[in-house]
Amino acid sequence: MTIDRATLLSVPIFKGLRPSVLDRLAAIAELAEARQGTSLCKQGELPSWLHVVLDGQVTLSGEAPDGTNAVVEIVRPGGYFVLAAVLANLPYLMSAKTVTRSRLVLIQAAALRELAESEISVSQCLLRAAALDFRAMVRQVRDLKLRSTAQRLGCYLLALVEAPDARAAEVRLPFEKGLLAGRLGCRQENLSRAFASLRDFDVETRGAKVVLNDIPRLRAFALPDELSDTLEKGDPANQ
Amino acid sequence: MTIDRATLLSVPIFKGLRPSVLDRLAAIAELAEARQGTSLCKQGELPSWLHVVLDGQVTLSGEAPDGTNAVVEIVRPGGYFVLAAVLANLPYLMSAKTVTRSRLVLIQAAALRELAESEISVSQCLLRAAALDFRAMVRQVRDLKLRSTAQRLGCYLLALVEAPDARAAEVRLPFEKGLLAGRLGCRQENLSRAFASLRDFDVETRGAKVVLNDIPRLRAFALPDELSDTLEKGDPANQ
Repeated sequence: MTIDRATLLSVPIFKGLRPSVLDRLAAIAELAEARQGTSLCKQGELPSWLHVVLDGQVTLSGEAPDGTNAVVEIVRPGGYFVLAAVLANLPYLMSAKTVTRSRLVLIQAAALRELAESEISVSQCLLRAAALDFRAMVRQVRDLKLRSTAQRLGCYLLALVEAPDARAAEVRLPFEKGLLAGRLGCRQENLSRAFASLRDFDVETRGAKVVLNDIPRLRAFALPDELSDTLEKGDPANQ
Repeated sequence: MTIDRATLLSVPIFKGLRPSVLDRLAAIAELAEARQGTSLCKQGELPSWLHVVLDGQVTLSGEAPDGTNAVVEIVRPGGYFVLAAVLANLPYLMSAKTVTRSRLVLIQAAALRELAESEISVSQCLLRAAALDFRAMVRQVRDLKLRSTAQRLGCYLLALVEAPDARAAEVRLPFEKGLLAGRLGCRQENLSRAFASLRDFDVETRGAKVVLNDIPRLRAFALPDELSDTLEKGDPANQ
């Protein structure tokens, strides 16, 4: 399926590219659909495509040589993967799989590298995207090293709140709890324990709905970072 | 202090730049020396410089709002920090401090962004550096989510072995154990426990010297990743 400028412009990382550059990008891109549970790329393989998610959800996970698996990231619409592997032409460090039926833009990896070598606006937009990707991972490393599971969960929930000054809010978990546990770097039973500890901070859970009755109290416990980036990407906790 | 092409070329990320581009880079760079314990940049501040380490060691650490501190990375000669903040002109997510007396190249952040906007070879080399930085952080996230502290320590020690096919080796810890604990994401007492567990895998510790008597056995326990990148950066465990 061919792709049009408007679709590309709807992807945050491509905002600001000139129409002629968007056309060059469209010429090396195609639309794809994937059913739930489709493997899109595999750890250890060289990248053929930069994947951009238009609809749906995709997990990126790393596997240890003994087969243990960890969700590193969950990519949502507007997000992409795995830019660093595509740019450096190095094997994927993570495997990608659709969590739900998904619609994607696939951009040819080698052609994208060539385009970035000749078109500085593309090089620059990828540079900014790579910088923000790095910062998202730094946040995860800091989070894993500095915070308890309950605090990590608290920060995650707070990041889902849209109104910046709300004192209470109802949020919806964007994916099921098994995935959330992986994203937060804990086992599912520890996630349940973390939800239980957050009850002390007026957090109520009803399935995928979570009610934060006292946001200032939860903030005081979870201590979210004040520093957030602006470009919308897939995972709200990585802003 | 002014800086010459040869010094810039000794920095892995700048390899391959044309002499005329190196001169433009030199024009916005300067040499600096810093004593042990000098704060070089502070979390939350906007970046003024890209720092490149020529000699010495620098810790990058993140601080939670309650003052808890975690070493995210230790930058060694040839490494740099914090590229992503400089490129995106966003506040530092980490603070940097010298561990030892250090010699650095400081490159003006705004001028570097301008140079990257007009000179595609600079944009391209920064793009590759940013991609490798991202991959180093992905490795840490995977490591923290997939491996025990003893396994993480094992992987770290294995990454210090220079001969790829050695069956035994003696390595030197590049920094003191307090820092190593931070880098591995554990408390110092857990690091001691991890060293103790590795005795079962024929790992002997004598101060900063560590003897790996049976590398295949240690590998089978620690399960290091097979996927390593090529560009030399500061931290051997992030290759």
